[in-house]
Amino acid sequence: MAKAHAESLDKALEELRELLGRKRLDTSLASRTLHADDPTWNPVLPADAVTFPETEEEVVEIMKICTRHRIPVIPYGSGTSLEGHISAPEGGICIDTSRMNEILEVNAEDLDCRVQPGVTRRQLNSYLRDTGLFFPIDPGADASLGGMAATRASGTNAVRYGTMADNVKSMRVVLPGGKVIRTGTRARKSAAGYDLTRLFVGSEGTLGVTTELVLKLSGIPEAIKTGICTFPDVEAACNAVIETIQCALPVARIELLDAFTMATINEYSHLGMEELPTLFIEFHGSPSHVREQADAFAEIAGGHGGRVKEWAEKEEDRQHLWRARHDAFWAAKAAFPGMLAMTTDVCVPISRLAECVTETQEDMRHNGLEGPIVGHVGDGNFHVILFAAPDDEERKQAIMAFAKRLAERAITMDGTCTGEHGIGMGKLKYMPMQHGPALDVMRAIKQAIDPLGIMNPGKLIPPAE
Amino acid sequence: MAKAHAESLDKALEELRELLGRKRLDTSLASRTLHADDPTWNPVLPADAVTFPETEEEVVEIMKICTRHRIPVIPYGSGTSLEGHISAPEGGICIDTSRMNEILEVNAEDLDCRVQPGVTRRQLNSYLRDTGLFFPIDPGADASLGGMAATRASGTNAVRYGTMADNVKSMRVVLPGGKVIRTGTRARKSAAGYDLTRLFVGSEGTLGVTTELVLKLSGIPEAIKTGICTFPDVEAACNAVIETIQCALPVARIELLDAFTMATINEYSHLGMEELPTLFIEFHGSPSHVREQADAFAEIAGGHGGRVKEWAEKEEDRQHLWRARHDAFWAAKAAFPGMLAMTTDVCVPISRLAECVTETQEDMRHNGLEGPIVGHVGDGNFHVILFAAPDDEERKQAIMAFAKRLAERAITMDGTCTGEHGIGMGKLKYMPMQHGPALDVMRAIKQAIDPLGIMNPGKLIPPAE
Repeated sequence: MAKAHAESLDKALEELRELLGRKRLDTSLASRTLHADDPTWNPVLPADAVTFPETEEEVVEIMKICTRHRIPVIPYGSGTSLEGHISAPEGGICIDTSRMNEILEVNAEDLDCRVQPGVTRRQLNSYLRDTGLFFPIDPGADASLGGMAATRASGTNAVRYGTMADNVKSMRVVLPGGKVIRTGTRARKSAAGYDLTRLFVGSEGTLGVTTELVLKLSGIPEAIKTGICTFPDVEAACNAVIETIQCALPVARIELLDAFTMATINEYSHLGMEELPTLFIEFHGSPSHVREQADAFAEIAGGHGGRVKEWAEKEEDRQHLWRARHDAFWAAKAAFPGMLAMTTDVCVPISRLAECVTETQEDMRHNGLEGPIVGHVGDGNFHVILFAAPDDEERKQAIMAFAKRLAERAITMDGTCTGEHGIGMGKLKYMPMQHGPALDVMRAIKQAIDPLGIMNPGKLIPPAE
Repeated sequence: MAKAHAESLDKALEELRELLGRKRLDTSLASRTLHADDPTWNPVLPADAVTFPETEEEVVEIMKICTRHRIPVIPYGSGTSLEGHISAPEGGICIDTSRMNEILEVNAEDLDCRVQPGVTRRQLNSYLRDTGLFFPIDPGADASLGGMAATRASGTNAVRYGTMADNVKSMRVVLPGGKVIRTGTRARKSAAGYDLTRLFVGSEGTLGVTTELVLKLSGIPEAIKTGICTFPDVEAACNAVIETIQCALPVARIELLDAFTMATINEYSHLGMEELPTLFIEFHGSPSHVREQADAFAEIAGGHGGRVKEWAEKEEDRQHLWRARHDAFWAAKAAFPGMLAMTTDVCVPISRLAECVTETQEDMRHNGLEGPIVGHVGDGNFHVILFAAPDDEERKQAIMAFAKRLAERAITMDGTCTGEHGIGMGKLKYMPMQHGPALDVMRAIKQAIDPLGIMNPGKLIPPAE
């Protein structure tokens, strides 16, 4: 679709202004830019206006207006995605769902809750505090739950609790044209027709706008034990992870931070941790069960030269450790002041993890690239974060070439170019290699649900060759 | 689509005969009838021929021939589905995948395996015996894995291990027209585009023919403890289940058999079990963990008037108990000799389980209907099996009316008309109430992937009103 014609855009803006008033239709450059800017170096391409609906009915009206005038629609949660999902390469209307942030019900008996899309994961967990339940998916940033569903987010807890694909039971979605559907039910399973919930989860706003989600909740474990364990090298750490997963030790989190990352974290958070490849691990369960698991892990790690440095059980101490882990991205940014960041996100079968990481390290060394390696290694998923000065085109090119080699390496190992960040604009180029002819099925589905191509154009589906 | 014209059918059969030879293109009435006959009273509508491909290439050629001549294609696994999935209301070509029954690889390190669609679950588990791994999905019958994926099967282990939706990583599918796609990867997660694996799982052969599956495997637990526990009434048993699930006790199986079922099983298998509402439960884990869980369950059950009758730990004793459970359907059939069976399959949020079961019992009493109630109650899923003489139209009507009330009851409780059997032809009538406008999205997807409507027509998607 070409950039919206000025005339139809003007008409659409007029109708939107009537619907929402001036306060909830923002055409200022500042707001439009803010809504298209993500934490990486993806291009910031502002929409023509930002809307702030407060009800599903208003989303329906916005969709009707945009459909009538064939104006692109860019759904926006909290702007923490990393692949340019919120950029507007063809202009259009950004739908900021942050005012739809009510927790509508908690069904403690069924271990689920119903929320609006603008609720963030921290808001939900803070609300749940007294119920004995929590929402486990933890992508690091305080993302909106609608956005997390859209990108099929996961994070540190996924090795035990799954990703958004496993934790969304049902959604309400406004389709192009304004029709509202509900996918799924609140039952634990269903065999009634195509699994639309799992089609919309991970669809990156290219099929519709989410207005409600039913999410699975989990019981807060009776006991939690967090540990850090250093290794002589990254390969040894990966091999310990592989053995842990293969022994079916029910680890709740198992995160790799390489020596470089540990150094940046020490600097950023004024800590004095050893600057060696390190696993952050966590176990959930009954006190005795957690103890058993921690002992079993220590034995596995020891076999790979690992040394458990610390076990933390008190909430405060555990939070302290995880804050350090979650600050890894910002610590890295601080280590490269004034530079732009790019992050990779491959995920491979666990048996290929050590090989994939060590080949990647070799590639970095060979090409003079430096940056942290961190990862949700229990899932075979790891990130390399690389930096370039804004005007250093040569370095950017070198990094992009590295990222391409890495994506291809993962795909060749029967893995994926993106474990949890999604395709957005940044990874479009890998889609043909990732999916082969299955990409045509995705195109056919997109065309069937969004025939005018107004939903988040330029994301997820690459242009036909 | 109207019934295939005789002329194009003749041409298609000629081409198929050339491809497969006379032995692997069976047009005998006996074989055609057998391939359309399921264990329930769904109409037996034979295809025009049954094919037995041995390779993906042959499936591609069959699909090309059927597409060219617009002949319906009915995929067939082992014929154990219960909703008329294998019937051919518009005639066409049945593709029996039973000769594609190779286990292609087992990746013990990644806890997965790659199989052809005709491999049955027992065949796979027998093959895996020495690896310490098993494939947990257990629908009772020795179904083919391709068929289990097609119907999104689950069964007794789903409460712990999930359904086919959670245990298929990747598939190869031949689409109408003959194009072959591969969905997903072997990585534990991916955020790369639409989740086609989970679209094809549960699509009941209406989108393509599966030619390969990558399945997740689980470690055989160190210890397994199976128990039976009787209750004064079904409501009390349901309330014990609800509390067990809400306490997040990691039960591996929790099955309800009502007093009627216990009586038929005693008769059928010459057992002397108490004829009271009974839960069959099972725990998996370390010996100490399993003991802890069994004790916790006994305490919960006791609070609802339950009495644990027996704990079995030896494989032989456990198999004995589960054989009785799995024979429930056949025991019921034996109790109604010469009659035809119809089975319901609702699934509701666990908080509504007791209410749904007791209202259903009341409905049965009120309408003079008698038959076993059995269920995978940990998921909120239960079946009522009802019987009528082949020529007793009045009773059939009464049963169908009851089944409709039950489906509507479950949907009203935010549940589903089918937890694990699928829609097929038997439940088409519930699709509008189940999905509302979302049904149009399913229609659009079907149209996009199978524009000629040749894939298993008359199943899953009801005709437009």
